[in-house]
Amino acid sequence: MRALRYYGANDIRLDDIPEPEPGPGMIKVAVEAAGICGSDIHEYKSGPISTPVQAPHPLTGEQTPIVLGHEFCGTVVAVGEGVERIAVGQQVAANAALWCGQCPPCLEGSTNVCQSIGFHGVSGGGGAFAAFDVIHERNAHVIPDSVLPSVGALLEPLATAIHAVKMAELHPGDHTVVFGAGPIGLMVLSVLSAMGLESIIAVEPGASRAAAATRCGATTVIDPFTEDVRTRIAEITGGGRVGASFDAAAAPDSLHVAIDITGVHGRVINIAAWERGVEFNPTSLLFREVSLHGSLAYTSKDFDDAVAHAATRAETLAGMITSTIALDDVITAGFDRLAYDKHDEIKVLVRP
Amino acid sequence: MRALRYYGANDIRLDDIPEPEPGPGMIKVAVEAAGICGSDIHEYKSGPISTPVQAPHPLTGEQTPIVLGHEFCGTVVAVGEGVERIAVGQQVAANAALWCGQCPPCLEGSTNVCQSIGFHGVSGGGGAFAAFDVIHERNAHVIPDSVLPSVGALLEPLATAIHAVKMAELHPGDHTVVFGAGPIGLMVLSVLSAMGLESIIAVEPGASRAAAATRCGATTVIDPFTEDVRTRIAEITGGGRVGASFDAAAAPDSLHVAIDITGVHGRVINIAAWERGVEFNPTSLLFREVSLHGSLAYTSKDFDDAVAHAATRAETLAGMITSTIALDDVITAGFDRLAYDKHDEIKVLVRP
Repeated sequence: MRALRYYGANDIRLDDIPEPEPGPGMIKVAVEAAGICGSDIHEYKSGPISTPVQAPHPLTGEQTPIVLGHEFCGTVVAVGEGVERIAVGQQVAANAALWCGQCPPCLEGSTNVCQSIGFHGVSGGGGAFAAFDVIHERNAHVIPDSVLPSVGALLEPLATAIHAVKMAELHPGDHTVVFGAGPIGLMVLSVLSAMGLESIIAVEPGASRAAAATRCGATTVIDPFTEDVRTRIAEITGGGRVGASFDAAAAPDSLHVAIDITGVHGRVINIAAWERGVEFNPTSLLFREVSLHGSLAYTSKDFDDAVAHAATRAETLAGMITSTIALDDVITAGFDRLAYDKHDEIKVLVRP
Repeated sequence: MRALRYYGANDIRLDDIPEPEPGPGMIKVAVEAAGICGSDIHEYKSGPISTPVQAPHPLTGEQTPIVLGHEFCGTVVAVGEGVERIAVGQQVAANAALWCGQCPPCLEGSTNVCQSIGFHGVSGGGGAFAAFDVIHERNAHVIPDSVLPSVGALLEPLATAIHAVKMAELHPGDHTVVFGAGPIGLMVLSVLSAMGLESIIAVEPGASRAAAATRCGATTVIDPFTEDVRTRIAEITGGGRVGASFDAAAAPDSLHVAIDITGVHGRVINIAAWERGVEFNPTSLLFREVSLHGSLAYTSKDFDDAVAHAATRAETLAGMITSTIALDDVITAGFDRLAYDKHDEIKVLVRP
């Protein structure tokens, strides 16, 4: 079968590789839909960042070239020896996180910060930009047939958003601010909206993304190119507390603005990938004892919560999908377009 | 009486000012001992930073020139109308924090992040580098006569250290790391030691401060000029978790090293004053979901805890005092020496 493999920056290829078969404890999935993630694009433009190049990844034993694709949904077509929870014919979404299960964080249930953390479709071991993929049974979350495959492919980034929102430890009545209305920012907005928060402010300059932010639950959208973000947020909150801000933008000034507008003992949650650092003065956290956090991926529980969220917000989530393309076109209409000619794209899905 | 007043960078003067008298709810203290704080030196060398220059401080109504001195202890010599809790003749240490009592953080008990936060001896309203000072009754903490005035003058920075350690939310068995063994770093070490933590690592290049760190409870002291801090900490912890690191150094690399050596879900607590920013990549927090916090001053409860701590650790605390000088010498032997010719000084006390 053909699969999209990563070799290095600006070097991805549709290679012919053997169709994978499930070993013990594994399941084989016919991929129905697979999303291109922002981290895939970072890896393409500026990588290798997370792909194993110098040595095999400890959990997969593989190194580049590796198959890409970690946000996906499909139908189980075969199961390996010992698989009991999953059956052929079921629709599953893939939890892409790979964890060892033995290190201290894993033993405490924080598998997302496993000391050997890896990601299926990034760290080797297979990937979803191919007709078939093989994953561990524990990584498969059964989803109802009523959930469209296109929505099922959004569960992985949705789980990331859910993990970030939990980390924020919001209080009732808090104002919230989300910087950047790309896929992750939009999913954070959707999760905040589902929590019933009444003041959800998005900061996003792009018109189509701003419209998507409103559809996902933003109660106000601020254009940082034409408005002063700090002033506008002060007007909107009127002295109320911004309990958390989420940085899904990694814009040059987003960190500083996020710190400045977050309230006493509030949290700034970074969920963006920063290709380079910024000037930062730790004293900026001091006067309201704001704290700065990084949210990494998700646990299986977060993924289950994503499945539940999608059941009630399928239409909102589906609205983020701006293009659906064939595997043949994944390089030109997928990676190249998102990396160099994005226009109004938000989420591009591949249907192998 | 003479009092040390701040006019601007490198401009402090021993002025003759009227002896202050206590209004309603205030008490007058004969200052027995007053410490020079690192923040006083920042204000002297690089200020104005916190002193009110352009407009009066909202809680004191004063602006520069203002009397300096916010770490102190003395004997009550007069009380104003309505003072009931404090009597003439008692020994008191001063909680220097000024808070409005009416803003949302104050109403929730977080007076240290009052929206109008100020500090007696920094924001106007009096100061302790003088024979007499007048403070609010609520800022006076009675201390036993068995506590020496020199130790009583250390309670204010000790309360700052206690607040920072509480913020760390340490778990039993955690390793801890303190960057910088100046007065605040040493007090953090003392507090961690009193908690019974078994692995308390100090990072300090100066020989006399390293020795002080050991006296205050550090179980290991690493010299960052001759040892690789990351490697040494990995050796010491042997895979154990650094639950929190405290940055009391604001050295060019301390933030980055602190993030790198702090364990899963651990906290980096900044208690240093940074005169400028550093390069920082928010992604550095990601892989162990380390969070970055700023700890500001203390509440009255933290100050009470400092009084209790000092009762059992008086000798350790007193060991931080490297010089005791007269008010006449406060500029040359105090501020100039600490700012420009520090040598082995740790805490310099003034006895007006």
